[in-house]
Amino acid sequence: MIIDVLIEKIKETQNPTVVGLDPRLNFVPEFIKNECVEKYGKTPKAVAESFFEFNKGIIDNVYDLVPAVKPQIAMYEMLGVDGIDCFIKTCDYASKKGLVIIGDIKRGDIASTAEAYSDGHIGEIDAFGIKHKIFNEDFITVNPYLGWDSIDPYMANCKNYNKGLFVLVKTSNPNSGQFQNLDVGGLTLYQKVGQLVESWGEKLMGENGYSSVGAVVGATHPDEAKILRELMPHTFFLVPGYGAQGGKAEDLAVCFDKDGLGAIVNSSRGIIAAYKKDEYSKFTEKEFGLAARQAVIDMKADLRRCI
Amino acid sequence: MIIDVLIEKIKETQNPTVVGLDPRLNFVPEFIKNECVEKYGKTPKAVAESFFEFNKGIIDNVYDLVPAVKPQIAMYEMLGVDGIDCFIKTCDYASKKGLVIIGDIKRGDIASTAEAYSDGHIGEIDAFGIKHKIFNEDFITVNPYLGWDSIDPYMANCKNYNKGLFVLVKTSNPNSGQFQNLDVGGLTLYQKVGQLVESWGEKLMGENGYSSVGAVVGATHPDEAKILRELMPHTFFLVPGYGAQGGKAEDLAVCFDKDGLGAIVNSSRGIIAAYKKDEYSKFTEKEFGLAARQAVIDMKADLRRCI
Repeated sequence: MIIDVLIEKIKETQNPTVVGLDPRLNFVPEFIKNECVEKYGKTPKAVAESFFEFNKGIIDNVYDLVPAVKPQIAMYEMLGVDGIDCFIKTCDYASKKGLVIIGDIKRGDIASTAEAYSDGHIGEIDAFGIKHKIFNEDFITVNPYLGWDSIDPYMANCKNYNKGLFVLVKTSNPNSGQFQNLDVGGLTLYQKVGQLVESWGEKLMGENGYSSVGAVVGATHPDEAKILRELMPHTFFLVPGYGAQGGKAEDLAVCFDKDGLGAIVNSSRGIIAAYKKDEYSKFTEKEFGLAARQAVIDMKADLRRCI
Repeated sequence: MIIDVLIEKIKETQNPTVVGLDPRLNFVPEFIKNECVEKYGKTPKAVAESFFEFNKGIIDNVYDLVPAVKPQIAMYEMLGVDGIDCFIKTCDYASKKGLVIIGDIKRGDIASTAEAYSDGHIGEIDAFGIKHKIFNEDFITVNPYLGWDSIDPYMANCKNYNKGLFVLVKTSNPNSGQFQNLDVGGLTLYQKVGQLVESWGEKLMGENGYSSVGAVVGATHPDEAKILRELMPHTFFLVPGYGAQGGKAEDLAVCFDKDGLGAIVNSSRGIIAAYKKDEYSKFTEKEFGLAARQAVIDMKADLRRCI
């Protein structure tokens, strides 16, 4: 089960950190941007290529310290064809370095459409009888608003290709409570979704007490996370919101179980753009990867202090 | 306002039908598939190129009869780079034929990520100071689970680039009630979402009484659609589920206002794969476009009988 692979890698690295590969042009060092503009002009391709060079620099410096990376597809999709090419190359590169890939795609659609997403992202597509792998992700994030028949189409590929899901339960954004915290009869909506995600996970239970069907639970809502940890004892949490979004290590200790497992915490710009922060000003722009490495080491220490 | 453009085109064509461009290999005629395999082998590119040839054949035969097309991005995204290329070319081709493009992408993410989707799909992206349009969509569908701050980032581009949204309210799939029909205190969740979508729409009101912020309301749930029509008087409905999913013209009459406006009804395989149905067996495979044309004429008559 892929969840066991993730857990083993967390144990190995002693680090429940996932690096969010959400590149933006203002994170990318000038020397990379200049090279790409020289080659490709001021084009989407140049942006995409600069993202790929940037991602490689990050991955090369963190792959031995973290279990996983989480590319956010929006940052690539916005560039069209060149961006999707970069997303695929980034997943491939990180995978070759031994990292677990969590594709942050947040898809959610009716069954026949979900099957298409599922085959593309975590299965294989059929081209006239020949099977092709398109995206190289181990987990993907999905949206529950449409209900079980929008999630079920991913389950067969999870089983057949050893993949997993993280279903949005309680998101990290400020307005997440607008619908997620509505009372649906003794429970809030996010709790109801959480209960069901826990039950959906029974079909993909791993060997370490957790399912390959996980949940997205924001670090910015510790009280809610605590309730969910109790409500979903077999569900692994993907925890966004640490750092730039305001979530603190103290707050997200509640996401972990008594063995210090049960959750993986994402940080994106806090790691990948570390070299731009005063804290890491000793690193030059050329050393952006080393700055990211130091930020990972510091984040690990910060998390381990609390869990 | 783009909603006024859509309404004018519905009036012009007297046809509130949107053709869902959701190609699948088994819909594509053999002669197209053979040509593409000959050129590109049994590859994702061959699938994507066969989709594009197929889409052009459909568009060429329906563009004068319908106001809009709705490509479902999953069918393209599953093919990776080649699929996204086909999606973009399909939108461009349909746009040049004067059709309104509804990109069925159902994205939903935190604000900083939503901005990336927004710039890519309905705005422009910045490549080192030069602006580029990537996707050529007029409307996109979005998911409300994360709340207002996940929708707000689209509003500026809607205003600046004359674009619109359809927010998922009550979806057409069988399990849509699992969360959407939960009672959230005197209202169901989909009604609560509907109320808020109606209020969000105030910022983008057009000249015909409707907003460029619309709602997705499934044809398969007529009782719910009736309630929503009353609850959301200024919200245009995108209605999936007609035909193959079981929605009937009689059922979806409730989605329209007294002037026969207020909704646009999607049909995908019922139109694009019409040549495969017994009903249209007089059309040969080469005439798949003409069969689609006839299916559009028949659907228009069916809808106009009821609204």
